[in-house]
Amino acid sequence: MLAERQPVGSSLTSEAARVASDVDALFGHYIGEPGDGRSRLFEAMRHAGIGGGKRLRPLLTVATARLFGIDEGRALRVGAAIEATHVYSLIHDDLPCMDDDDFRRGKPTVHKAFDEATAVLAGDCFHDLAFEIMSDPATHEDPFVRADLVLELARASGPNGMAGGQMLDLVAEGQALEIGAITRLQQLKTGALIEFAVEAACIMGRIAPEARTPYRGYARDIGLAFQMADDLLDHNGDEAAAGKRLNKDAAAGKATFVSLLGEERARQQCGMLVAQAIDHLHDHGAEADLLRAIARYVEKRDR
Amino acid sequence: MLAERQPVGSSLTSEAARVASDVDALFGHYIGEPGDGRSRLFEAMRHAGIGGGKRLRPLLTVATARLFGIDEGRALRVGAAIEATHVYSLIHDDLPCMDDDDFRRGKPTVHKAFDEATAVLAGDCFHDLAFEIMSDPATHEDPFVRADLVLELARASGPNGMAGGQMLDLVAEGQALEIGAITRLQQLKTGALIEFAVEAACIMGRIAPEARTPYRGYARDIGLAFQMADDLLDHNGDEAAAGKRLNKDAAAGKATFVSLLGEERARQQCGMLVAQAIDHLHDHGAEADLLRAIARYVEKRDR
Repeated sequence: MLAERQPVGSSLTSEAARVASDVDALFGHYIGEPGDGRSRLFEAMRHAGIGGGKRLRPLLTVATARLFGIDEGRALRVGAAIEATHVYSLIHDDLPCMDDDDFRRGKPTVHKAFDEATAVLAGDCFHDLAFEIMSDPATHEDPFVRADLVLELARASGPNGMAGGQMLDLVAEGQALEIGAITRLQQLKTGALIEFAVEAACIMGRIAPEARTPYRGYARDIGLAFQMADDLLDHNGDEAAAGKRLNKDAAAGKATFVSLLGEERARQQCGMLVAQAIDHLHDHGAEADLLRAIARYVEKRDR
Repeated sequence: MLAERQPVGSSLTSEAARVASDVDALFGHYIGEPGDGRSRLFEAMRHAGIGGGKRLRPLLTVATARLFGIDEGRALRVGAAIEATHVYSLIHDDLPCMDDDDFRRGKPTVHKAFDEATAVLAGDCFHDLAFEIMSDPATHEDPFVRADLVLELARASGPNGMAGGQMLDLVAEGQALEIGAITRLQQLKTGALIEFAVEAACIMGRIAPEARTPYRGYARDIGLAFQMADDLLDHNGDEAAAGKRLNKDAAAGKATFVSLLGEERARQQCGMLVAQAIDHLHDHGAEADLLRAIARYVEKRDR
């Protein structure tokens, strides 16, 4: 499980590709081939979880862990646990009763490729997989760290985090939310897990809570900038490149950062948040270059 | 959090009532009232999780913990975490795309009382709540025990446990399963979590795995007997008393223990398993009386 540390200067693209391939390998290790009636469930898990996505959350965990000299193989496992939570939420959010999406990451969504019941169960199983990876002794030698990672992941993904944000999003339909309410919704729906991806590395590094302020600031800014960039891509982007349906919020009459601020101001805000995120890292040298590169990518990404 | 130990001789009914009321109180503590768009989600969680159910799993954890002199307040928290997993699975299994049930525990199912999207999210939130309770320092003082409880809960509820059993159940429709396949299905679908309710107390008591054999034997027998009794109730029972639709497996052309063995042999098998479960406890005195009473209840229950 011990991976060699990569040289700090290597490019974001190659680092991201390596993290993505390591996450695929780890998920592949856990998703077996039982050879009984459960095969369909395991196939659905592979369909949803392997080979796709930006893997932003594990990349953030690995990049933050680098600041504290944490073994990269272990940081990858923690990041993969967070990605498993993200995968579960995408499967459930795509269901007909939720956002009703047919495409995700350029492939049919799980309930389209399989069926709804299999999709509910595949999501539930990724939900369990997150906690199974997180609590495994291979993830961290200190059981206190493992238990703390589990506790904070459960809080970040439950009703006071990601799932609560999805509920706010569901009830937002047809409501005229203003900017404060949209910000709150997004901080729960996507921000909580992105922030936890950074926080998790602080927990692994046993960084005292009062010393986590710059990393929390970075994560909060990145999370909001990511959502603004998402709204901008939704407004202007290319469905083929995105691999999913775009502009559905506007079609459903939901307010977005772009509909509220206008395209130009949303773009400025996003750039400002990214600059602010990078500024939080001013005490760090080259070991924070990957976090800086991720911040710049969040602003410039085209999918 | 420290609860006084109850005298061993008190009756099953009063012990079960106390456990049920403590589980309700703990869930109530966690399910807040946010005063924003998430209210509906929290209401759905209260609807599904508070005031209902036999609370068999937490009762098993509390009863097994008594063998090892474990603080009862802590055992209750572990049992409540397992019950949260059970509640999440009931909400999702009742969905129209799964078993499509309108009533549960004498009330409309969550998707009937609220809507499907809220039901998916309320299930997801109980899923998180299980791990949040389990990993909380209030649940056990030793972080190694907490992390181990989380790991084993994730395994018991995922694709190689409860969720895998539900998948087997879904694909069983219209198939002519024989007794071995039904036993395997039930051991995953309901057995895995019932067995974990007993195993969890062994983990709390730091019982060496090789010394857990009698408790695992007890749990396995109880789990199977419970399912046979369920099939018998389904066959003969009273829908009003059960608070849910009965005989749906037979209607869906699914094999059950009763359809395969006949009523008489199923009843004999159930009785034999209960006797065998009690026999596993022969090294214990009065401290195992609650476990014995639970075993007898599993055979005789009328709902």
